[in-house]
Amino acid sequence: MQPVLINGQWRDANAAGSFQATNPSTGEALPDEYPVSTWDDCDEALSAAAGAARELAALPASRIADFLEKYAELIEANKDQLVEMAHAETGLPKSPRLADGELPRTTGQLRQAAAACRSGSWQLATIDTGAGIRSHYAALGPVAVFGPNNFPFAFGSVSGGDFAAAIAAGNPVIGKANSSHPGVTRLFAEAALEAARATGLPLATVQLIYRTSHADGERLVADPRLGATGYTGSRGAGLKLKAAADAAGKPIYLELSSVNPVVLLPQAVAQRGELLADEFTGSCLMGAGQFCTNPGLVILCDDEPGRALVNTVAAKFSAAPTGTLLSRGVAASLHQGLQTLVDAGARVATGHQPGDEPRITYANTLLTITGDQFLSDPETFQTEAFGNGSLFVLAKDAEQMGEVLEHLEGNLTGCIYSADDGSDDDAYDALAPRLRRKVGRLLNDKMPTGVAVSAAMNHGGPYPATGHPGFTAVGIPASLLRFAALHCYDNVRPQRLPASLADKNPGDMWRLVDGQWSQGDVA
Amino acid sequence: MQPVLINGQWRDANAAGSFQATNPSTGEALPDEYPVSTWDDCDEALSAAAGAARELAALPASRIADFLEKYAELIEANKDQLVEMAHAETGLPKSPRLADGELPRTTGQLRQAAAACRSGSWQLATIDTGAGIRSHYAALGPVAVFGPNNFPFAFGSVSGGDFAAAIAAGNPVIGKANSSHPGVTRLFAEAALEAARATGLPLATVQLIYRTSHADGERLVADPRLGATGYTGSRGAGLKLKAAADAAGKPIYLELSSVNPVVLLPQAVAQRGELLADEFTGSCLMGAGQFCTNPGLVILCDDEPGRALVNTVAAKFSAAPTGTLLSRGVAASLHQGLQTLVDAGARVATGHQPGDEPRITYANTLLTITGDQFLSDPETFQTEAFGNGSLFVLAKDAEQMGEVLEHLEGNLTGCIYSADDGSDDDAYDALAPRLRRKVGRLLNDKMPTGVAVSAAMNHGGPYPATGHPGFTAVGIPASLLRFAALHCYDNVRPQRLPASLADKNPGDMWRLVDGQWSQGDVA
Repeated sequence: MQPVLINGQWRDANAAGSFQATNPSTGEALPDEYPVSTWDDCDEALSAAAGAARELAALPASRIADFLEKYAELIEANKDQLVEMAHAETGLPKSPRLADGELPRTTGQLRQAAAACRSGSWQLATIDTGAGIRSHYAALGPVAVFGPNNFPFAFGSVSGGDFAAAIAAGNPVIGKANSSHPGVTRLFAEAALEAARATGLPLATVQLIYRTSHADGERLVADPRLGATGYTGSRGAGLKLKAAADAAGKPIYLELSSVNPVVLLPQAVAQRGELLADEFTGSCLMGAGQFCTNPGLVILCDDEPGRALVNTVAAKFSAAPTGTLLSRGVAASLHQGLQTLVDAGARVATGHQPGDEPRITYANTLLTITGDQFLSDPETFQTEAFGNGSLFVLAKDAEQMGEVLEHLEGNLTGCIYSADDGSDDDAYDALAPRLRRKVGRLLNDKMPTGVAVSAAMNHGGPYPATGHPGFTAVGIPASLLRFAALHCYDNVRPQRLPASLADKNPGDMWRLVDGQWSQGDVA
Repeated sequence: MQPVLINGQWRDANAAGSFQATNPSTGEALPDEYPVSTWDDCDEALSAAAGAARELAALPASRIADFLEKYAELIEANKDQLVEMAHAETGLPKSPRLADGELPRTTGQLRQAAAACRSGSWQLATIDTGAGIRSHYAALGPVAVFGPNNFPFAFGSVSGGDFAAAIAAGNPVIGKANSSHPGVTRLFAEAALEAARATGLPLATVQLIYRTSHADGERLVADPRLGATGYTGSRGAGLKLKAAADAAGKPIYLELSSVNPVVLLPQAVAQRGELLADEFTGSCLMGAGQFCTNPGLVILCDDEPGRALVNTVAAKFSAAPTGTLLSRGVAASLHQGLQTLVDAGARVATGHQPGDEPRITYANTLLTITGDQFLSDPETFQTEAFGNGSLFVLAKDAEQMGEVLEHLEGNLTGCIYSADDGSDDDAYDALAPRLRRKVGRLLNDKMPTGVAVSAAMNHGGPYPATGHPGFTAVGIPASLLRFAALHCYDNVRPQRLPASLADKNPGDMWRLVDGQWSQGDVA
C-alpha cells in the first residue's frame, strides 16, 4: 500500500480501504494499491498546513518562486517516468500529448506562477497616500485541490493550474489525487517535496491524500483551518462539496460541466462547410473528446448546407479511429449522457455504442435534433456527454438559434462562426449578446478546445459551468486571486507594512498609487 | 398605501400586508403605510430588470455615468426633504450627521462611481496581443440590494454604496427598502427615476419594493433572471439569503456582524491611557454605536493602567448622553446581546439597562471579562451587541492576548494601539500576524469607525463578517467587481470587440496590455 504525504513525511495512511488504478489501454488493474484515508489523515494534514501557512506568510515571495522553479526543473528531470506512468494510468498518448504538450504546459504554468509570485503585480497593490490606506491581495490559508481525471499533469492536484495559483499566492496545498491517476500524483508529490527541501520551504507546503469518503471530503472543504478549495470534476460531486463549503462560509472554486455551444451561421456553413466539418471533428475527437471545453452542442441552420455538414461530420466521425477513454466510469457516463439525449428524441447520425474491450473506447457519436425539439426540453438537451460525442441542433433560422441561446445554462465557452464577407453580420449582432451572457469565453471562427495560458484567458463562466462568474482557473496572474484575501492597512506604521505596500517598490511590481498604475516608488 | 416602483411606474403593490415606520425620537408610528409585496411584484421587477440589463449592455458607459451624476444633483436639490424624512424615520441627528456627513458622502460615492464608470479602468481590461485574447470585467445582470438600517443614505438600497457599484458596473438595481426607513428610500427612488428619465436610461434601471415575505426574499436572490445580490444587515437574515443564493449558484455579497476587535498594548495604555479612553469612547458611542465597524471587543492587559482605563471609560460612558437608537428592534437586540454576555459571566462596569420611553435609547454599556473567561467560551463572548455597548477583555499578558486573537471569528476590522517609543513592538510583532488573518482592515493607533471611500479601502473581511474575503463593499473602483463577470474574447474580430478592448483606448482607461499597465492605444 502506497504511503500518503503528510507534514513532510511519506507515511502509512490511516486507511479505511484501498483502490487500484486501471490501465485504460488494456482494461487491467495496475499493480499499486492506494489507501482511502480516514478523517485522521485529513485532520493532520489540515493542522500541518495551517502551520505551513503561518510560516509562508513570513517568507519573502522570492522563496516561493524559487520553489516553483525548482519544482519545474525536477519535473523535467523526471519526465520519462511521469509520461510512462500517466500513459499507463490514463491511456493518453505519450507523444505528442503527454510528453510534448501537457508536460511543457505544466512546467510553463509553474514558471509563469513563479514569475507572478516574484513580481507581486498579481496582488493589485493599491495605495492611497492621502488617506493613509493601502491594500493588496494576500494569501488566504491552506488550499485543498481536487484535480480532474482528464489532465494528469496540467490540472493535477499537486502540479496543475490550481496548485500553481494557490502556491504562488502564498498558500500551502493539500492535494486530493484523482483516483484515475494516483501514481502520477505520487510522482509529482515526491518531486514537490524534494523541491520544498531544496528551497527551504515548510515541508507541509505540499501534502497528498489519495482518496477519502465523500463525507470526509465535505468536512475537509468546510474545515476552519482551510482557506479555500479548488475543484475540477463532475457536477454531482462538485455541487456536494460546494454545499458543504458554502454552509461553512469557505470559498470554493469549481470547474464543472460545460457543453460549450458552437454556433455556425448559415453563410459560413454555405461558404466553408467542409473546412468547418474538419475543424469541428478535430476539436471534438481530440483526446477522445475528454476536454472541459469540448464542443458538445452545435447550433446551425436546417438548410441544405447545414444538413450536408451534418452528413460530412457523421462520415468523418465513423471513419476516425476511436480514442482511448480515461476509465470505464467515463465510458459509462458518456453512454448514459448520450442515452439521455436519445431517449429525449435525438437522432443517432453515427455511433452511440460502446467499443470492444479490452481497450476502453466508445464509438465517435453524432446526434441531431431540431430547434423545436431543443426548445421543448432545453434542460435535457443540455445534458453533458463527456467524451467523443456531440449534439447538433438544426434550427429553423437565426431567430430560432437566438431562442436556443436564451435557454442555455452557463458555459465555459461559446463560439460563433460567421462568413468572412459580412453576410452573417446581422445574425451575429443579434446572437452574440445573447451568447455573451452565458459564457466565460466568447470565440469567433475558432473551436474552444485550446485554452491558452494567457493573462487574458478566462477559463471560467457562469454557473453551473463554475461556481462564480468572476474567476478564471487558467491564466496567470488572474487565477491567483481565487486563493487570496483582500488585506487593507489603515494608518499602519510604515515599517510594519508588507514589502509590497511600502513606499519603496520592492522590485518592478505594478501598483495603483493614487489612481495611477506605476512600477516606481511612492513619492 | 404608498406605491412601489416597478418598470418605471409608481403603481399599487400586489400587497399581502402593510407596515409603518416608527419615529425613534418619539416612539410613535409615522403616518405613511407601505406595502408588503407578494411574489408577483418581485416577478415583474425581475423581468423588467432583465430587459433593462440588455438595454444597458448596449449603451456607452458614459450614459450610465451621466445618470449617476444627474442623480447626485437631484439628491442635493432634495436635501432638506431627505434629511427631514431620515431624521423622522431613524432619529439620527439632522446636523452634522445626516445633512453634513452622510448626504455628502452619498453624493460623493455616486460621483466617484460615475467617474469609475466613465473611465472604465475598474474593468481591469487585459489584452494579450500575441494570443489574440482580450478580457475585462463587465455587467453581470440585475442586482438586488438589501440595505441596512443604520445608514439611510450612504448604504441605502437605491442610493448607497452597493447601489452605486452595481449601477456603475452596468447593472439595473432592484432595491428592497429597509423597513426602518421606507420613506427615505421612496424619496431616493423618485429622484432616481427622474434621473433615469432625464438621461434616457431604461426606466427599469432602478426599481423599489419595500418588503416581502422571507420566502419571497429567498426566491428573489435565487431567481435565474438575477445577476447577484448585495446585502447588509443582520447575520440571521443574511445567512438565510446566502443559503438560498448559494443553492442556486447566484453570487451574493453580504456584510454581516462584526465585533471589530481593538488591541490596546500595555505600554500604549500606560503612556496615553486617558487619550485612548477618549478615542474609544468617541468611537463607540458615536451614532449610538450603530456602525458596522463599532469597536465591540477591546483586548488589553489586566494591569494597573489597564484597570484604570476601564474605570475611566466606565465613567465617561455613564456621563455621556445616550443616543437615539434606530428602532425598538435594535434596542431589544442590543439588550439581548448584552444579556447573553452577562449570562456567560461578564461583569457590568456600567449601563446594561433600557432607557425610558418615549425616545428609544439604551444606557451606554461597558462589560468586562478576563482573558481566561474569554478562552473558556470564545463563541459566546463574540456575541455582537449592536449599539452603544462594548466588552473589554482583561488578559493576563501579551501571550494570552494572542490566544484570544487565535479564537476570533472573521471581522471587518482589527486595531492595534502600541507605544510610540517601540516598547510594545515585540508584542505587536507577535500579535499582528494573528489579527491580520482574521480581519479585512488592520489599523494602527486609530479607531475603526471611519470608513473612507478610498480606492484602497477594504470594508470586507473573512466569514462571518462577510460572505467572501476577497471583496469590499466600500471603495471605488474595487467594489464594482462584485457585480461583474469576467468576459473573455478569443479571436473575436476587431470591429466586434467592446470599446474597452479595442486597439484604440476609448479614453484614458488603464489597461494591462501584454503585461504592462497603459493608458495608451494598443500598438
